[in-house]
Amino acid sequence: MEQSSGAPLFEWPRSDDDHGDPVEQAARRPEQDEDAALAEVAEWFLREDPTGERFSRVLRESLDQVLDGPRTMRFRYSELRKTEKTHVGTIVEINLGKEFNLEDGRLMDYRVAGHEVDCKYSMSFGGWELPLESVGHLVLLTWADDDASRWSAGLWRVDPAHLGHGAGNRDRKKKMLKSGQDRVRWLWRDHELPENLLLHLPPAVVDRIFRQTSGQQRINELFRSVQRRIIRRDVVLTVAQQKDGPRRARMAREFRHLGREGILVLGHYEWDVDVARALGLPVPRSGEWVSARVAPADGPGPSTFEADGQWWRLADDDEWLAAAPRIPRSHPLGDLD
Amino acid sequence: MEQSSGAPLFEWPRSDDDHGDPVEQAARRPEQDEDAALAEVAEWFLREDPTGERFSRVLRESLDQVLDGPRTMRFRYSELRKTEKTHVGTIVEINLGKEFNLEDGRLMDYRVAGHEVDCKYSMSFGGWELPLESVGHLVLLTWADDDASRWSAGLWRVDPAHLGHGAGNRDRKKKMLKSGQDRVRWLWRDHELPENLLLHLPPAVVDRIFRQTSGQQRINELFRSVQRRIIRRDVVLTVAQQKDGPRRARMAREFRHLGREGILVLGHYEWDVDVARALGLPVPRSGEWVSARVAPADGPGPSTFEADGQWWRLADDDEWLAAAPRIPRSHPLGDLD
Repeated sequence: MEQSSGAPLFEWPRSDDDHGDPVEQAARRPEQDEDAALAEVAEWFLREDPTGERFSRVLRESLDQVLDGPRTMRFRYSELRKTEKTHVGTIVEINLGKEFNLEDGRLMDYRVAGHEVDCKYSMSFGGWELPLESVGHLVLLTWADDDASRWSAGLWRVDPAHLGHGAGNRDRKKKMLKSGQDRVRWLWRDHELPENLLLHLPPAVVDRIFRQTSGQQRINELFRSVQRRIIRRDVVLTVAQQKDGPRRARMAREFRHLGREGILVLGHYEWDVDVARALGLPVPRSGEWVSARVAPADGPGPSTFEADGQWWRLADDDEWLAAAPRIPRSHPLGDLD
Repeated sequence: MEQSSGAPLFEWPRSDDDHGDPVEQAARRPEQDEDAALAEVAEWFLREDPTGERFSRVLRESLDQVLDGPRTMRFRYSELRKTEKTHVGTIVEINLGKEFNLEDGRLMDYRVAGHEVDCKYSMSFGGWELPLESVGHLVLLTWADDDASRWSAGLWRVDPAHLGHGAGNRDRKKKMLKSGQDRVRWLWRDHELPENLLLHLPPAVVDRIFRQTSGQQRINELFRSVQRRIIRRDVVLTVAQQKDGPRRARMAREFRHLGREGILVLGHYEWDVDVARALGLPVPRSGEWVSARVAPADGPGPSTFEADGQWWRLADDDEWLAAAPRIPRSHPLGDLD
């Protein structure tokens, strides 16, 4: 095709005729059908993930994936590159598709329970932007906020009555209006997001951890500073900045590291899990650790365990420190990291 | 703003006036200036990465990242989800930005040597699509083809004379014409891409590997079937389908696995690297392994090594098999995986 001089180099599809306009089509569609399809998709997701645990994990892993802490030491959204910031939604879409083994849609991202469904993510609640193509279709709206440690997910049939009236940005997207939020069928609302631990530590503690020069020292400081709380593998890798970070976590409990300060570091091992339960600590799952300072107990009792021929309990904050007992090697309960 | 009935819901910027049109502006810019900026950016990249080794690694890792083999067992582009396929370019852009610590651009993706530079990737050579906004700007064109195991990267100032004349797709992009390719300043042309090993194995071998039911068995079959070639960490993880894949690779050389078949599996360890060198095998770097079947040698000579009080050499294909020597534990030369 020859380009005539003076004509615009880029031409845009015209949407000002009445026929075939998706907005008009959506307006003509009977309410009844929409609800039935929406209900089927909602039911499908709720059957696959009754508690929202899988959604929660995918959202956490997607945020971690973009932060890429193990390679970059980053754990704050503000530290991301420009493109990365706009990229979280794509990652969420891909990872939800993988987790639930969703078919590609013909027009939208997915095909769920026989219906076309698009996936949208926003890190600010209500900030979803809908493309022209999604009008009249179902969208899975997702929100995960690392500061608030909260997430939501719901379904909505994109209705132009609840889209912003602006010209649309250059990606042909329009923002959902606040009035649309009431019409969303929430699958999970304000659920707890596994915490971005480093993001929520006091800055002085973060400084103290990252000031250490070796990976082992940083890991030691992490388990020294953050006790009685679950520490995920991703945090360990971000702090260690080396591929064998989990090995550093396993070594942290040795006498020469934290053992001599009375600090136990428990992982997903038979003995460790029993001790965590006995002490009333959160119980580490696969790829998780928990640390705690212990002190000799007078004898067996509630919240004690036996090791090295002695009974032990959680230490008080200002208590004199004995070395922690040597911990027997026990069977890993899952893959070794 | 009220929407008047009958007006298009989405409106597009007009580009048919003469003023402020980026195409016109580019045409007016003197050739001289363009070349100077382009030369500065080229010089910057060539100084940072004289051999292209860093580019090569980033491109390999980006393809691996999208394939996500360690979690999904995928190693073919055709197995990707719809969104993932369109997503490689973003990953390449992000990873190059990280590798070279590039500043975000104000208008384009990066700021390099003081100039705005956009980043474009295509998996088919010449298939780059340029957005309207990039006209008149520098672009870093990248290509990496997993089938051909080749990659290229070059710089071009986007010139509408060498863009397709079509209406542009809905992302407002136009394809670069073949005539543009001659005008690209190639930084690296047709360099070798680290191989996607599984993609290039005979299907029967791939079947044999993935038919095994346990991770250790699949890893054993990998090192049994693919000898004298470097096997990267990502391949090990894809085959093992478990987080401790590298440990499976380290164990593969034990007598009960491949040792009894006379097969050595060498990693990035002091002794291993010396043996690989002695035998004339490719030398494993960090996160790499190489396997080979060995047989007792008559005595010291070229391409032999000593172990277990005996000299050893590479075995011939049809040779009687002795068990491989027990390998001393030696120091890892980098992080343990």
